[in-house]
Amino acid sequence: MSTQIRWPDPYVTQALEAVTGASPLVFGLTNYITAGLNANMVLAVGASPAIGGNPAAVKPLATAAGGVWINLAAMVTDSPELLREAARAAHEAGTRWVLDPVTVGAGIPVSDDLAADLLRDTPPTAIRGNASEIIALAGGLASSKGVDSTATSEEAVPLAKVLARRTGAVVAVSGPTDYVTDGTEVVAVPGGHRWLTRVTGAGCSLGALVAAFLAPGTDPLRATVAAHAVLAEAAGRAAETARGTGTFAASVLDELSLLSGI
Amino acid sequence: MSTQIRWPDPYVTQALEAVTGASPLVFGLTNYITAGLNANMVLAVGASPAIGGNPAAVKPLATAAGGVWINLAAMVTDSPELLREAARAAHEAGTRWVLDPVTVGAGIPVSDDLAADLLRDTPPTAIRGNASEIIALAGGLASSKGVDSTATSEEAVPLAKVLARRTGAVVAVSGPTDYVTDGTEVVAVPGGHRWLTRVTGAGCSLGALVAAFLAPGTDPLRATVAAHAVLAEAAGRAAETARGTGTFAASVLDELSLLSGI
Amino acid sequence: MSTQIRWPDPYVTQALEAVTGASPLVFGLTNYITAGLNANMVLAVGASPAIGGNPAAVKPLATAAGGVWINLAAMVTDSPELLREAARAAHEAGTRWVLDPVTVGAGIPVSDDLAADLLRDTPPTAIRGNASEIIALAGGLASSKGVDSTATSEEAVPLAKVLARRTGAVVAVSGPTDYVTDGTEVVAVPGGHRWLTRVTGAGCSLGALVAAFLAPGTDPLRATVAAHAVLAEAAGRAAETARGTGTFAASVLDELSLLSGI
Repeated sequence: MSTQIRWPDPYVTQALEAVTGASPLVFGLTNYITAGLNANMVLAVGASPAIGGNPAAVKPLATAAGGVWINLAAMVTDSPELLREAARAAHEAGTRWVLDPVTVGAGIPVSDDLAADLLRDTPPTAIRGNASEIIALAGGLASSKGVDSTATSEEAVPLAKVLARRTGAVVAVSGPTDYVTDGTEVVAVPGGHRWLTRVTGAGCSLGALVAAFLAPGTDPLRATVAAHAVLAEAAGRAAETARGTGTFAASVLDELSLLSGI
Repeated sequence: MSTQIRWPDPYVTQALEAVTGASPLVFGLTNYITAGLNANMVLAVGASPAIGGNPAAVKPLATAAGGVWINLAAMVTDSPELLREAARAAHEAGTRWVLDPVTVGAGIPVSDDLAADLLRDTPPTAIRGNASEIIALAGGLASSKGVDSTATSEEAVPLAKVLARRTGAVVAVSGPTDYVTDGTEVVAVPGGHRWLTRVTGAGCSLGALVAAFLAPGTDPLRATVAAHAVLAEAAGRAAETARGTGTFAASVLDELSLLSGI
Repeated sequence: MSTQIRWPDPYVTQALEAVTGASPLVFGLTNYITAGLNANMVLAVGASPAIGGNPAAVKPLATAAGGVWINLAAMVTDSPELLREAARAAHEAGTRWVLDPVTVGAGIPVSDDLAADLLRDTPPTAIRGNASEIIALAGGLASSKGVDSTATSEEAVPLAKVLARRTGAVVAVSGPTDYVTDGTEVVAVPGGHRWLTRVTGAGCSLGALVAAFLAPGTDPLRATVAAHAVLAEAAGRAAETARGTGTFAASVLDELSLLSGI
């Protein structure tokens, strides 16, 4: 049983207004492939992004930020220890943070180990991933092809609930319909568009957006649902005018910036 | 004497259908400037990209992938040893791989040495570059301005044939007309647009696309020709509607995604 | 008292023609978030960009280039020593170079120290930043939120003049109106659009553009003013047709490429 929520439910619009009003600093560790799009997504909802793994800057930024996201694909350039340090700094400063377990379950042991450490030592406020990643993180059997999921979001919901209860984090699974759960409630977010899976980093942007929506102090379940609903709405609108995947990426940013009124 | 091939020759369209049908994982090492566009190009033809030099992930990804591309500009962030390891992993696993000799001949000795090592120790399935790079790689005298060519693609054809015969790789030279050779046959691919040289990473995307087209097992000459012909067609169509170089980049992705029907 | 200059003043258009005519190699060290956009901006005015911190390539490229820009946000991936080496290579080769003091004054001591060292040991030809950065670099008290300014460009002008006189560099402060000074004259550049602050790396692109405009030997004050005026004009035109921040970014590149006639 799940509730369905979508734009323009006030549950969503007010959470976006809180981001735009506060214009929080949001700090992320992610990889270079998606960093530009992720930063532009954060800017398009009126927040202020900083990204990157300079060891001297990680602690000050994770402490100063209103929200932090850590995408395990950051390990393309950053060491596991740096990611641990960022999570620790956020945890100790009481900064809400989001884990995006990209590559977990893809056969790269160092990713799996790091994710397990982070869940145990510095539990995140929210976790978002595709079905394969959430299933693998919850200890289920799933396979992925590189960074792409081979399971459906519906299949992942039961394990997402287990993961939420075990970690205390809100857990989101993205797919044709996204599902967000705190371990008890499950909220379905419809919408989006299949082209989101054909733009590199579009899924990863959800980690950044959830961090932005958490920053003003919004209830974690609501912040996570709202971030997904805003991107789903922007993607749906973008698909109406885009000719293909290239203009779609630009149009998603357009529609986000129009929804937030920046 | 050279054959001319272009979209919608079945030689090209069927090779694209093979990519879209197989949706192969394609793994690349390239630099951060071009990674986002390269990944989006691969996605736009229906394949699944992974990019990046995490030492723990290079071997598993190069082994699991259907095709690998190594762009020497990856040395912006990755060590020569890591690039060697990726080539070795692809070679040992029998994964077809593409060498893009960016910066060879630009006065950076470490690039030239690495390229020579890769050709000798772990010969690629295909090599693609601009005229200056192919001439330099074949041992000819050529100069380049940073990453841009100062020779024409026509001038490079004789040395491309020599290089192909010596290495066993298919060799492609991009320019206003692209030329692809296996050392015996030379195929000319017309089309494209000068704005491709005004979008960073558009040329580099050919390395990624050739890897995607090689992945389903298509004959290497045909796969390399088809990758060039598909990008040339997409660029020609994009130039008809684009206002300048910014919308052109988005439109090339649009047209690729429409040609592949994803 | 300040002069106001904007497109299509010949002071600006002729400086752009000098860039397009010379098509100089421009080398930059910046971070991976903004590298793609920065490179595309340089390409859109007809110059040839190279970006990146491969230690083996920094000295040859800084020597061969017509202009160099060093964005301190490069410290996301590069060491302070590498940035020092690039500045030293440019300085010794007589290559004009631009300092973009991103993150100075943001509470990251290593940035502040590096900026001070560069100003003293290898003084740049030009410095460009937002108000908070220029105030901090001049020794004033300013705070910034991550990479975003909390002061106005007008507030920074007096300290920009002090900084210019002390370093011998032309100093530019960007904001709704940009100001450029050589310590005596102050030139105001109106135009631009607020969306420039909502596209990641758009501000940073000014460092790259100033380096491109310096390359052909244009007077530093004029080159710096012209780079700002060209981007301001392109942004103003782009805002007329863009729907939101996504298409705006593509349209700025379009308009730059149309102004330069490449």
